[in-house]
Amino acid sequence: MTTIAVLGTGRIGKMHAELIDRQVPGLELSAVFDVYTEGAQAVANDLGCDLAESVEEVLASDVEAVAICTSTDTHVDLTVAAAEAGKAIFLEKPVSLDLSEIDRAVDAVEAAGVPIHVGFNRRFDPAHAAVQKAVADGSLGDLHMLKITSRDPAPPPIEYVKVSGGMFVDMTIHDFDMARFVTGSEIVEVYVKAAVRVDPAIGEAGDVDTALLLLTHENGCITSIDNSRQAVYGYDQRVEAFGSAGMAGSENPRSHTTEIHTADGTRQETIPYFFLERYIPSYLAAWEAFRDGLESGSMPINIRDGRAPLVAGIAAKLSHEENRPVRTDEVGT
Amino acid sequence: MTTIAVLGTGRIGKMHAELIDRQVPGLELSAVFDVYTEGAQAVANDLGCDLAESVEEVLASDVEAVAICTSTDTHVDLTVAAAEAGKAIFLEKPVSLDLSEIDRAVDAVEAAGVPIHVGFNRRFDPAHAAVQKAVADGSLGDLHMLKITSRDPAPPPIEYVKVSGGMFVDMTIHDFDMARFVTGSEIVEVYVKAAVRVDPAIGEAGDVDTALLLLTHENGCITSIDNSRQAVYGYDQRVEAFGSAGMAGSENPRSHTTEIHTADGTRQETIPYFFLERYIPSYLAAWEAFRDGLESGSMPINIRDGRAPLVAGIAAKLSHEENRPVRTDEVGT
Amino acid sequence: MTTIAVLGTGRIGKMHAELIDRQVPGLELSAVFDVYTEGAQAVANDLGCDLAESVEEVLASDVEAVAICTSTDTHVDLTVAAAEAGKAIFLEKPVSLDLSEIDRAVDAVEAAGVPIHVGFNRRFDPAHAAVQKAVADGSLGDLHMLKITSRDPAPPPIEYVKVSGGMFVDMTIHDFDMARFVTGSEIVEVYVKAAVRVDPAIGEAGDVDTALLLLTHENGCITSIDNSRQAVYGYDQRVEAFGSAGMAGSENPRSHTTEIHTADGTRQETIPYFFLERYIPSYLAAWEAFRDGLESGSMPINIRDGRAPLVAGIAAKLSHEENRPVRTDEVGT
Amino acid sequence: MTTIAVLGTGRIGKMHAELIDRQVPGLELSAVFDVYTEGAQAVANDLGCDLAESVEEVLASDVEAVAICTSTDTHVDLTVAAAEAGKAIFLEKPVSLDLSEIDRAVDAVEAAGVPIHVGFNRRFDPAHAAVQKAVADGSLGDLHMLKITSRDPAPPPIEYVKVSGGMFVDMTIHDFDMARFVTGSEIVEVYVKAAVRVDPAIGEAGDVDTALLLLTHENGCITSIDNSRQAVYGYDQRVEAFGSAGMAGSENPRSHTTEIHTADGTRQETIPYFFLERYIPSYLAAWEAFRDGLESGSMPINIRDGRAPLVAGIAAKLSHEENRPVRTDEVGT
Repeated sequence: MTTIAVLGTGRIGKMHAELIDRQVPGLELSAVFDVYTEGAQAVANDLGCDLAESVEEVLASDVEAVAICTSTDTHVDLTVAAAEAGKAIFLEKPVSLDLSEIDRAVDAVEAAGVPIHVGFNRRFDPAHAAVQKAVADGSLGDLHMLKITSRDPAPPPIEYVKVSGGMFVDMTIHDFDMARFVTGSEIVEVYVKAAVRVDPAIGEAGDVDTALLLLTHENGCITSIDNSRQAVYGYDQRVEAFGSAGMAGSENPRSHTTEIHTADGTRQETIPYFFLERYIPSYLAAWEAFRDGLESGSMPINIRDGRAPLVAGIAAKLSHEENRPVRTDEVGT
Repeated sequence: MTTIAVLGTGRIGKMHAELIDRQVPGLELSAVFDVYTEGAQAVANDLGCDLAESVEEVLASDVEAVAICTSTDTHVDLTVAAAEAGKAIFLEKPVSLDLSEIDRAVDAVEAAGVPIHVGFNRRFDPAHAAVQKAVADGSLGDLHMLKITSRDPAPPPIEYVKVSGGMFVDMTIHDFDMARFVTGSEIVEVYVKAAVRVDPAIGEAGDVDTALLLLTHENGCITSIDNSRQAVYGYDQRVEAFGSAGMAGSENPRSHTTEIHTADGTRQETIPYFFLERYIPSYLAAWEAFRDGLESGSMPINIRDGRAPLVAGIAAKLSHEENRPVRTDEVGT
Repeated sequence: MTTIAVLGTGRIGKMHAELIDRQVPGLELSAVFDVYTEGAQAVANDLGCDLAESVEEVLASDVEAVAICTSTDTHVDLTVAAAEAGKAIFLEKPVSLDLSEIDRAVDAVEAAGVPIHVGFNRRFDPAHAAVQKAVADGSLGDLHMLKITSRDPAPPPIEYVKVSGGMFVDMTIHDFDMARFVTGSEIVEVYVKAAVRVDPAIGEAGDVDTALLLLTHENGCITSIDNSRQAVYGYDQRVEAFGSAGMAGSENPRSHTTEIHTADGTRQETIPYFFLERYIPSYLAAWEAFRDGLESGSMPINIRDGRAPLVAGIAAKLSHEENRPVRTDEVGT
Repeated sequence: MTTIAVLGTGRIGKMHAELIDRQVPGLELSAVFDVYTEGAQAVANDLGCDLAESVEEVLASDVEAVAICTSTDTHVDLTVAAAEAGKAIFLEKPVSLDLSEIDRAVDAVEAAGVPIHVGFNRRFDPAHAAVQKAVADGSLGDLHMLKITSRDPAPPPIEYVKVSGGMFVDMTIHDFDMARFVTGSEIVEVYVKAAVRVDPAIGEAGDVDTALLLLTHENGCITSIDNSRQAVYGYDQRVEAFGSAGMAGSENPRSHTTEIHTADGTRQETIPYFFLERYIPSYLAAWEAFRDGLESGSMPINIRDGRAPLVAGIAAKLSHEENRPVRTDEVGT
């Protein structure tokens, strides 16, 4: 049984605390901490764990692992501190919005030699994982193209947009990770066509809400990503890999399977609207992988996997600004 | 090139004449005949073939085959005459509504030794045929159950209902044939639960419009058939075979594949409404099988295959009247 | 917050205890009990609740509700005792295999006036529930036919088969409940065609493993149920309602949505194999309905809903033995 | 009844002649011509029409319309001659590989004022047309993105590749037309990422076989096109439109609907392999539109619709050579 403390009990941290406590045999939730004490207290009460009064208290304790689920701007400092304290680390994405900051985290983690797992949960979605598996086991032959559709049901609040670092590092970062995961190859070039189509306020905040991206990978695979901040029909998440021997694609699940046939045609339910409805099983599987990684000494998504998508995101921003393909080695190595 | 004349140029006969003329290499449409001369003339003009003035003229000619597409009550007389004239015969279903009449046709055909094919076109539908193949090639292991859904989009005119012989011999007869085809086994018992739910006028005409049937086959397979004279969403035709090693099912095709996703859910087109939309490819495949059967000497659906479904239909009527399971050997052998 | 104790911590009782503890806000798991103390102790430890030493201790405590998840032969005695103790009751199906015993439970519950909910969880499956809703809200017009497919992935142990009361009361009982739920109408007649096809040992134990049933409802609807103890491709659970204005059907969910297309065709994952994989959301929804029913005073599935399916099951056995349609009022009222 | 002659009786010309003769009431096939006389003779014999000895003979006759199905390099000369002869014209795509040549055709047609229809058949595919309709009727709100997948089952012979003008004007030209059709807006910029992945011989011939394209339209819509010369699982043709109010997508049809479920998962048939299997209904609908356009005076796809996709194709070639976005007004107006 590995003891773990959750730092940050906002929406995502609370979800992680609940998953650990209720559904991950082998992990034991010891404590939670949040600068917003009231929220952390409620979680502690609900789950029957300790309420820590500070990060320092957590790091000084004998807890074996920490989950860093605080706001993005605290990720690197907490990662460095946890690494120095010798804790195993579960780190929510993105690691940081700043490459030199990420490098600081990389250095600290590698110096300390602590296990770390970055929370790109979508790799653990069973449908996307089956696409990756079909590529990795050769079922599709040589991989020629990858297509990722990733559309949110509704845009975040404008206040969030303003501090998010922009759609490419906030939202597309998941898709850059998926592209690396499925192709098994680094992104070498990015071209972006983006626009403000959903909400002018997003444009006024200096961001975009609609984009198509073309990536080139080291192994020659070409990837397209399409993003929208608003798909009114639900959370649209699909991955399609195409190769010399075939194609594998993950479709959106439906809320349930009933079809109604009338003289007007056939009707089905919408797809799940919210990311938690769609991806809870993937968060759970990510925790199981973390637990197993502690055992085996090998984490599936390490700190460098947290860095590469940010490089792609920075290249995407530049491509959008200059309307030209941008090589990732222009912006980071 | 085999020459063929089409007797009867109503809806179904006209379709057959067109298919033969336009889409079946190896068959040549020589002539058409109908007691309604004007209709036959129009077909002859359209397709550029002869208009025969009588059945006798056709049978006395050197045409090698005839397609009997006239009204049901003339089928046996024409079959006997064509057999005696040594013609190969394509005979529309049902052979007759009367078992002793069918026996007369069987005797004549077998005495003359002419090739004959009875037009149960659904066996040639590629989806249903794939279900049969999965049974026949052992993909499903031992066959335990068969389920047939067969629903028309709208009831026929009441005048037709009155002379149709009743739903079980007019409509269900296709499903009895399908049950024999897929299971590869004779029907030994029939139980029916039927009602008038679509149109009271059908009940007043002494018929039913809604039915569920349970069949037992010689090989122990249990089959259900469900029929309705009115499925407002289109022509609903499905076959599902279940065995020790798996299940195979033919779904309804859709008119086209487009799906529209909105905040209200997903919409698809209706399935095809009319039997010709659904089953034209099966009629064409049936003609190709007829042509090939002339060559090989083996017809896929012979005159005895035209008899067995009528026995089941008569048993079904009796089961409905007496609310009890009826063995087919009670009503015919 | 309503306190509840779980009696019986076998497979199904343990699941209920975990659901209550972890996922049903408003219910608080107070204690568990099982004659097999070790199992109950493990559950109590895992979930942090009390271990009761006897049923009497539970019923004498101030716990407000009990979940009866013990073996079927104890259901009635426990229901009577819980009713007399004034507890709200969640009762696993079947209530009993004996009609007079059920009547004893009905009397006790109605005399005590305690709320009771019988655990026919499938009513809460979102897909089946959507079919029922389409019937109830008139989307399908008048209901003409209902078709239920219900096949287990593998037969239970022969020792279980011997004490199960037979397939019709052990397995089909869920489908009789579904038929009553979707049609909103009582079953008045049952006809069965059944066989031993999966395992001869089931036949030697006096039971069947494969069946097709035809039901007639009070409102004229005709229902078919098909059962098998072994569908090698997974847990096959479908409901299809057909009416004058359309059709609604619940398909099997797939384990995930990925399709792989190669030159050999398209492959998908199997459907979920095990009933817990398929129906966990329905068990959870059943608990939410129980909790809400305590509040509102109206339970969705009451004790009489636990009785009617057993009457149908007894009629089915008789129909199978005598190969004739059996009216339910022959065997129970 | 409009009389029509077919010029060119290769694979596509023969198909058009057969469709006209057999399935388009209101059009009468008068004559066929091909420089390869033997082929034309066979078609004339089969369909019972005249064999013309020269194009001049056809244009001097009183035939009212011509279908130009000859090799691409003859299209403009024949179009000009037919226009000058006052014939209505059905012109196979592409009009030409040379913009100035197309302009010559445009001028001649507009000077003569003859009706002309360019054969972009995919607009008439019922599924793609339903996507366009959902955009045009506002069902999807404002159009934000369009995604087109267009993959052939196998590459053409290398000899053909060498004279094809390259994949972007030979194959992608259909997709440029589809993009203009569905968005209802001109293409203003093209960016391409392309490679040789299928066959090195294609690269040696100076062409590519794998590509992802990003288009920007005048109305702000962003479009992706993905092309491959070889999808081993069949002819992959899909269109997906995404807007503020929803998404509409045309899926690939399946060869038939049967699914086989075993312990290994579910199997379906491949999608149709060959373009004729998939698109025959669209060719037929194109002919009906041509016939109706003669009546109404309005052709759905005119000579300028034949020009715009070539401009996009030329821009795509330049983008590929220079790895930069290319505005269509750089290469044509």
